[in-house]
Amino acid sequence: MTFPWPAPGTPIDAIPTPMPVIDEDRMEANIARAQAYMDRNGLKFRPHIKTHKLASVAGAQIKAGATGLNCQKLTEAEAFADAGFDDILITYNLLGSDRVVRLKALNDRVAGLRVVADSVATVQGLAASFTKDRPLTVLVECDTGGGRVGVQTPEAALDLARQIADAPGLRFGGLLTYPAPGGAVRVEAFLSAALALLAGADIPCPVRSNGGTPDIWRAHLVPSATEHRAGTYVYNDRAMLRAGACGPGDLAMQVLATVVSRPTPARAVLDSGSKALTSDLLGFSDYGLIEALPGARITSLSEEHAVVDLSACTGPLPQVGDRVAIIPNHTCVVSNLFDRMVFHRQGRVTRVEPLIARGTVW
Amino acid sequence: MTFPWPAPGTPIDAIPTPMPVIDEDRMEANIARAQAYMDRNGLKFRPHIKTHKLASVAGAQIKAGATGLNCQKLTEAEAFADAGFDDILITYNLLGSDRVVRLKALNDRVAGLRVVADSVATVQGLAASFTKDRPLTVLVECDTGGGRVGVQTPEAALDLARQIADAPGLRFGGLLTYPAPGGAVRVEAFLSAALALLAGADIPCPVRSNGGTPDIWRAHLVPSATEHRAGTYVYNDRAMLRAGACGPGDLAMQVLATVVSRPTPARAVLDSGSKALTSDLLGFSDYGLIEALPGARITSLSEEHAVVDLSACTGPLPQVGDRVAIIPNHTCVVSNLFDRMVFHRQGRVTRVEPLIARGTVW
Repeated sequence: MTFPWPAPGTPIDAIPTPMPVIDEDRMEANIARAQAYMDRNGLKFRPHIKTHKLASVAGAQIKAGATGLNCQKLTEAEAFADAGFDDILITYNLLGSDRVVRLKALNDRVAGLRVVADSVATVQGLAASFTKDRPLTVLVECDTGGGRVGVQTPEAALDLARQIADAPGLRFGGLLTYPAPGGAVRVEAFLSAALALLAGADIPCPVRSNGGTPDIWRAHLVPSATEHRAGTYVYNDRAMLRAGACGPGDLAMQVLATVVSRPTPARAVLDSGSKALTSDLLGFSDYGLIEALPGARITSLSEEHAVVDLSACTGPLPQVGDRVAIIPNHTCVVSNLFDRMVFHRQGRVTRVEPLIARGTVW
Repeated sequence: MTFPWPAPGTPIDAIPTPMPVIDEDRMEANIARAQAYMDRNGLKFRPHIKTHKLASVAGAQIKAGATGLNCQKLTEAEAFADAGFDDILITYNLLGSDRVVRLKALNDRVAGLRVVADSVATVQGLAASFTKDRPLTVLVECDTGGGRVGVQTPEAALDLARQIADAPGLRFGGLLTYPAPGGAVRVEAFLSAALALLAGADIPCPVRSNGGTPDIWRAHLVPSATEHRAGTYVYNDRAMLRAGACGPGDLAMQVLATVVSRPTPARAVLDSGSKALTSDLLGFSDYGLIEALPGARITSLSEEHAVVDLSACTGPLPQVGDRVAIIPNHTCVVSNLFDRMVFHRQGRVTRVEPLIARGTVW
C-alpha cells in the first residue's frame, strides 16, 4: 500500500489526518529570531535536531548563522553526517563497545565532532579507544540543577576535565549543561566557579555550552556561556507557550485531526491518539490545545482515539467529520512518530520531507 | 549509516540499547493460552495487530486458531492485506473521501473485510460509496461503559443497524464494543437488550464482538458475545500484570537499557527515554518496572534519558555501563516506536523482523 501523501498546493484542510503540519513562515521566523538574539548577545547558537530530524531545516538553521548541530544519539549524528554536516555535538554519555566503535568511525569523517561525559567510566571507555592521531573532543556535562545527568560540583568538573586532558586520545573541549528552567543564576554560578578552577589548573576551556528553549531568551543572563543549544524553538509547542518562550503566532506545528465520533453532547472523539500526539503531559492536565475550541479539553488518549470533553465549550461544537487543529504539548516527540513531515504556507502544502534518523534506534 | 541489528545467536545482553526484545517462548505460550481459553468457551478470537504489527506474529495467531485479524487503521489493514490476510475487521469509524476511497479498494481485494460505525454520518458516508455488487459489511459500535466511541443505547444501536441494513451497498454485520475493564455485566446487559430489539425488527445479528486484554479471562461472562478481540495479551505488560490478566512469567516484552550516568548515590540515568518507553503512565506513577531492582522507580523521562530513583532500593545498585531490563507500562506503544522487533529464546537472538504498518500514518 502507498499512503497518499499530499502534493504541493493541496490545502491542508484536505490532507489525511491525523497529521502534523509545519507552517514554514512561522518556522523561518523562529529560526531568524533565535539566531538574531544569539548574534546580538555574542553567543554561538547550536540547534538541536531532535525536534525536526530534517536535513533541510538543519540547513536553514546553519544558513541563518548557527555554528553547528546538536544531536542526542549516534544514529542522529550518523544521519546528519551522511547529509553533509561537519560540526556535530552529541550531548550524551556514549558507553559500550558497539557505540564507541561507531563513534570512532564517525570521528574519522566528521571534522567537528564532539561528545560529552559526566563520569570516569565514560571517559575511560573513550580514552581506551581513541588515539592522538585522531583524538576525540570531550566536554564535561554539568548538573546545574536540571537533575538529570552531569557532574554535581565545579570541583568534580575539574577532576573529570583533567582526566580528559591527560588522555592521549582525548581533548578537553569545555563545559556543558542542560539546566532547569529559570536556572540562569545557578548555571552562571557553576560555570564561573568551574572556569576559575580550570584556569587555576592551566586547563583551557574553550566552550561553555548552555541549553534549552524554555530559557532561550534568557541565555544572555549566563555571561560565562559561549554557546546556547535549543531544539524546540524551531517549531514551538504548548509547553513553550506556557513557559513564555513563544507567543501564539510562533507556534509552527499543528496536528490536524478529524472528529470521528460525537457519542454524547459533551464528548467528541478525534483520530489523533497517543500514536499521533504521544502521551507527553509536561505538567498539563490534558493532551493538547485545540485553539479553535475554547474550553475543550483532550482528557484521554488511546492509541488511535482522543477523547475531548466539550462541556466547558462556548460557541459552536464540532460535528462528526469536522476537522480540528491541535497544538501539541511537546513537538519533539510528535515529529518522532512520523516518517515524513508536511510543510505549508498559508494553508497550502509546500513540500513533504522524509525525516532522517527518526528516533527508533540508538 | 546502517544500524547494527543483532545476528541470530547474539546474547541479548550484547545488543544495542535501548531495545525492546520479545521472548518467543513466552509469546507462543500467550498465544496458545488465549486461543485455548476462547476455544474452551466457544468464542471466536480476533487478535488485534496494533500490539505487534508483525506478519509472522499475526500468522502464528491465525495458525493457533484465531478467526481473523483486528486492525485499528487503514494503513494497518492495507499492510496486513498485502501480507495475505483475508479476514480483517477495522474497529474504527472511517470518515472522509480519502479514507473511503482507500477502503473501497481494500474491500475489492479482501474477502472478509469489515468496519464499524457509531453515527449516521459515518454510515451515510459509507453508504454513498459502496454498491450492492461489492457491499461493505458494517458493525455497530456500542459504548457499554468504555466512554470512548459507540452508540449510547440499545435503541440507538437498532436505529443505526436499520440504516446499515437499508443501505444497498452495506451489510449489517453485528454489534461491537470495547468495554471498560470489569465491564462484563454492562456489556452483556447492552448486547442482550440490543439483540432483543434487533430480533424484534427481523434484523439478523451474526456477530457480537467484545474486546480487551484486561478482561480476556472474563470473556465467558458475556454469553451474548460470539467473538473476543485482544491485542496486548500477545506480549503483555506492566498494566496487564496489575490488571491480573497475566503473571510475571507471561511478560514477553522487555526493554533493554544501559545505565549511562550515576550522578548521585540515589540517581541512575538510563538510555531508555520517552522515545523508547513512551510517556504512557496508564495510572502508574512511574514509567516502567525494573524487575531486577526492587524499589527502583523511573520517576521521569526525557527523550533519550530515564531518571531512576534508587533511594528505596535494597541490594546492590547498578553502576555506569550496567544493563537493566524494563517491563514497559504499555507494550503496544513501545512496538510502535521501533522499525524492527528483536526476538529471542533463553536470551539468545532468534530473529529480527521489520514491523509492517508501524503506526506513523493513518
